[in-house]
Amino acid sequence: MSSLHAVIMAGGSGTRFWPASRSARPKQFLPLVNGKPLIEATLDRLRGLCADDNVWVATNKKQAKALTRLLPNLPRDRLIIEPEPRDTAPCVALATATIAAVDPTATMIVLPADHAIEPLDAFHSMLRAGVELASDQKTLVTFGIRPTYPATGYGYLQCGSALAGTKLPAFVATKFCEKPNLETAKQFVAQGNFLWNSGIFVWRVEAIRRAMAATEPALATSTTAMLAAIQKQERAACTRAFLQAPPRSIDYAVMEKADTVAVIEAPIRWDDVGSFPALAAIAAPDGEGNIVVANHGGSHLALRSRGNIVYVDGARTVALFGVSDLVVVAVDDAVLVCTKDQAHDLKALVEHVRAAGRTDLL
Amino acid sequence: MSSLHAVIMAGGSGTRFWPASRSARPKQFLPLVNGKPLIEATLDRLRGLCADDNVWVATNKKQAKALTRLLPNLPRDRLIIEPEPRDTAPCVALATATIAAVDPTATMIVLPADHAIEPLDAFHSMLRAGVELASDQKTLVTFGIRPTYPATGYGYLQCGSALAGTKLPAFVATKFCEKPNLETAKQFVAQGNFLWNSGIFVWRVEAIRRAMAATEPALATSTTAMLAAIQKQERAACTRAFLQAPPRSIDYAVMEKADTVAVIEAPIRWDDVGSFPALAAIAAPDGEGNIVVANHGGSHLALRSRGNIVYVDGARTVALFGVSDLVVVAVDDAVLVCTKDQAHDLKALVEHVRAAGRTDLL
Repeated sequence: MSSLHAVIMAGGSGTRFWPASRSARPKQFLPLVNGKPLIEATLDRLRGLCADDNVWVATNKKQAKALTRLLPNLPRDRLIIEPEPRDTAPCVALATATIAAVDPTATMIVLPADHAIEPLDAFHSMLRAGVELASDQKTLVTFGIRPTYPATGYGYLQCGSALAGTKLPAFVATKFCEKPNLETAKQFVAQGNFLWNSGIFVWRVEAIRRAMAATEPALATSTTAMLAAIQKQERAACTRAFLQAPPRSIDYAVMEKADTVAVIEAPIRWDDVGSFPALAAIAAPDGEGNIVVANHGGSHLALRSRGNIVYVDGARTVALFGVSDLVVVAVDDAVLVCTKDQAHDLKALVEHVRAAGRTDLL
Repeated sequence: MSSLHAVIMAGGSGTRFWPASRSARPKQFLPLVNGKPLIEATLDRLRGLCADDNVWVATNKKQAKALTRLLPNLPRDRLIIEPEPRDTAPCVALATATIAAVDPTATMIVLPADHAIEPLDAFHSMLRAGVELASDQKTLVTFGIRPTYPATGYGYLQCGSALAGTKLPAFVATKFCEKPNLETAKQFVAQGNFLWNSGIFVWRVEAIRRAMAATEPALATSTTAMLAAIQKQERAACTRAFLQAPPRSIDYAVMEKADTVAVIEAPIRWDDVGSFPALAAIAAPDGEGNIVVANHGGSHLALRSRGNIVYVDGARTVALFGVSDLVVVAVDDAVLVCTKDQAHDLKALVEHVRAAGRTDLL
């Protein structure tokens, strides 16, 4: 019988929540959900679905130490450390090789560390449906969320003909679409057969390896070499093989080209928490409609101020007076004040910080 | 010959520069002028005018300790400590008694600690003209600034008939006007014979004592009793006498009613630095027109941001992104974000802080 494993991909960079997030303390480390880091919430969410010992966290060297501190209950040998931060395809290859070494017939759930998902039972139902659909040993399962607005910040999955054999609506995935412009997004929503790409996958080890071989042979070769190296406990060989994996996203390298991809319409509320304004989806507003995330002694006061996002960490108070629709972030060594509109483009500010030579803040 | 003394009134509260200013660290303590506190700049400005030993600083118990740390070169016996913070009339009475004990024929310059004044030579000329005018042993000299706009945040002095005998234009002061509304302020500016009240005075000890007796006898009695107590080194008696002085402003108690008040039109640039937006008058803008006061390791970065006021103290960076006309203040335990418009009404926020029970921030 195929064992069920989950791989949490936790190697993201820290641009979109700067200055709270940094290269060594990315978004998934921040206490965004009731004082809990998103990665911890993600781990909690897998409880009751996979055996604890079958949950893996993939990250890079830079973040591994902080991650170990953050997740003291995670066994050290369940940390998959990428030799250097690359895109998701090499990460999936390394995770596949690692799990194949334990059980070559395993079923893998692959999911990001830093999404907000509710409710729990719907999340479990959707993954169980995925496991069922993947049990044919060839289907690569993705999960789509019905759009509530024409988002330009998410990728989309086009649904083709319906698939039988699952308790949830499932379709052949006919197209992966990168983040569209607004006009295209509106068309997607109007057409009704486009879902947001949640970035969560379920597949059998043998299915993803076969799909890699068909779509991106270098990735399959790298996976096979890493598996051999892991079995022989040759760390240097594993690193060499990892570095030969093409630095692409798994969507681009495999999923878009594979011919056995299914999409399950997931009955969850889902948010990728892609920027400070997204906190409105996961944190409660104060009496004046300001969203506040305050931790480690942080607090806030607001007068004549509405619709702001406040993130405060450490023993300090953020006071708002007569301001609206701002993002205010206060951490030990930095304070950010920006408009909610601009918060989506925080990358530009981070580039400015870099150009100003302030790498101490990155 | 009358000796020349100066009394710097440094007992102001910390409301208008909150959270940088606090009750124990009022505005004049803040490093607002090229990293220098306003009170230090005020002391520097008196150099070459009064003997160092004739410069006094009046403050209250709460601020005395911090003031001593801030001004290590000020002799301890030149600190005039008000037993409790009251208005300016009791402060002037105590200062008058203190100086009278040294020289009953002294000439006194009385000036606030927390104004920005330039240039130095014009400031000295104006005070020398005041000393000359006060040498008749009866004139109380005030200094007026020609308004550059119909300010509603300043008091005004009405100029009557011209006075001879000074190198600068001088007039009989016919009226003291409290902060006017905008319409009245416009009338004042249009009439041409109204000047801003700088809050700086020059008089002989005997002249102010005589004016007190004529306008506010309880103040004169308190002064006489304090003088006697100081001469006998009876501190408790001095405190008792201080507490009998009516808690009013010197303008209201004496100046408005005295009949020997002159106003010299002062050829200085003057600002009472009454709120964060006033920093524009004393600090230089960055490339994007943001006014920045950064001290003790503080710094700032701005992108797509114009016309903001930034005050940052301590090892932190304030980053502005896409915001305009805000006041952003970042100190160890607090961050304030407000509009420039609201900054004039910071008192309301401070009351809110008090009502929220956050006296730790006051």
